[in-house]
Amino acid sequence: MAVVVAEVMRRGLMLVLSSPSGAGKTTISRALLERDENLVMSVSVTTRSMRPGESAGKDYRFISADEYHRMVERNELLENARVFENYYGTPRAPVLSALGRGRDVLFDIDWQGTQQLAQNARADLVSVFILPPSTKELERRLRARGQDSDAVVAGRMAKAADEMSHWREYDYIIVNREIEASVKSVQAILAAERLRRDRQQGLADFVNRLREGV
Amino acid sequence: MAVVVAEVMRRGLMLVLSSPSGAGKTTISRALLERDENLVMSVSVTTRSMRPGESAGKDYRFISADEYHRMVERNELLENARVFENYYGTPRAPVLSALGRGRDVLFDIDWQGTQQLAQNARADLVSVFILPPSTKELERRLRARGQDSDAVVAGRMAKAADEMSHWREYDYIIVNREIEASVKSVQAILAAERLRRDRQQGLADFVNRLREGV
Repeated sequence: MAVVVAEVMRRGLMLVLSSPSGAGKTTISRALLERDENLVMSVSVTTRSMRPGESAGKDYRFISADEYHRMVERNELLENARVFENYYGTPRAPVLSALGRGRDVLFDIDWQGTQQLAQNARADLVSVFILPPSTKELERRLRARGQDSDAVVAGRMAKAADEMSHWREYDYIIVNREIEASVKSVQAILAAERLRRDRQQGLADFVNRLREGV
Repeated sequence: MAVVVAEVMRRGLMLVLSSPSGAGKTTISRALLERDENLVMSVSVTTRSMRPGESAGKDYRFISADEYHRMVERNELLENARVFENYYGTPRAPVLSALGRGRDVLFDIDWQGTQQLAQNARADLVSVFILPPSTKELERRLRARGQDSDAVVAGRMAKAADEMSHWREYDYIIVNREIEASVKSVQAILAAERLRRDRQQGLADFVNRLREGV
């Protein structure tokens, strides 16, 4: 009788977290990256200048407008967007390389970026939308960011309402009542999605060897 | 500004665990039921007689052949099967009632029962197939059950090989290397599936109220 031991390879997945600002997405992302050694952050390119506190290659890869347009022409970006006068994009090569090595890649992008990713790589995509527990809490978090005028906060709230209208485009929805519970929820989604039959590429071989061994 | 608090109702889901005997399914099921207050076991009806150690209404509902055939005629069973001279089936009413109250229902059924459930209630179904880590371990577990002859064990192994050929019909695959890890894997699948957008029925209302409040 053959001894067959499970060594099932898995292709990585692309985990998208989207939310209106103020819903807690950034805090959740940081906690996930700290706790999950197999998860890596996708680093976007941008043509805007580096801000105080940012580090090149970690927060963004800062590139020239020329380089950005060359990447677009060569189809080297999985998704890209213009925000005011600046361009942003997700380089394709490092993501595909990580997925091929079985690493999972975390994306902090909005619904427009998620739609582009879905067009380019639907089978690898797992999308999670994070909602605030209440309008009151959302406003509290948006105000806590600084001494902004009521008009600025109202503008952010209106933008949040617009972003929230896209919740139906996501696979999973988490209402972020409490950060620790929400982090655990995303961890459960990651753990479950890794167990989906169609992500475990070596299974057919493994089961064949098991059945022959029997 | 309206204060909107998340009270999102959820329809229960049907969690099917299938595996060849000896892969650890029963141990995993018991652990799940102990740890998850929202999970209830589906109790099958059967026409066979009660065995020592079984209790009526817990392991099975023991019914007459007449009653069984009446249930089939009235379409009161979600799935049913004949095994040798005995009949087995899953009553529809208690399952639908539990799902409606937001409880999740656990099914310990084989691939044939799973196929019938999928025909009757695909949207509510989450199916998990449990594989043994190796043929050697599978044989060890099948032998550990008693002092059976090699021929009896060989028969069970052949049946296991046949059952394993249906792994492709399941949503999730768990290779049961270690019970505790496998229980945690099923718990993650449950937690994640509960967060799927299409299972959270009250979300549309909740998001609408959030956006109006903003």
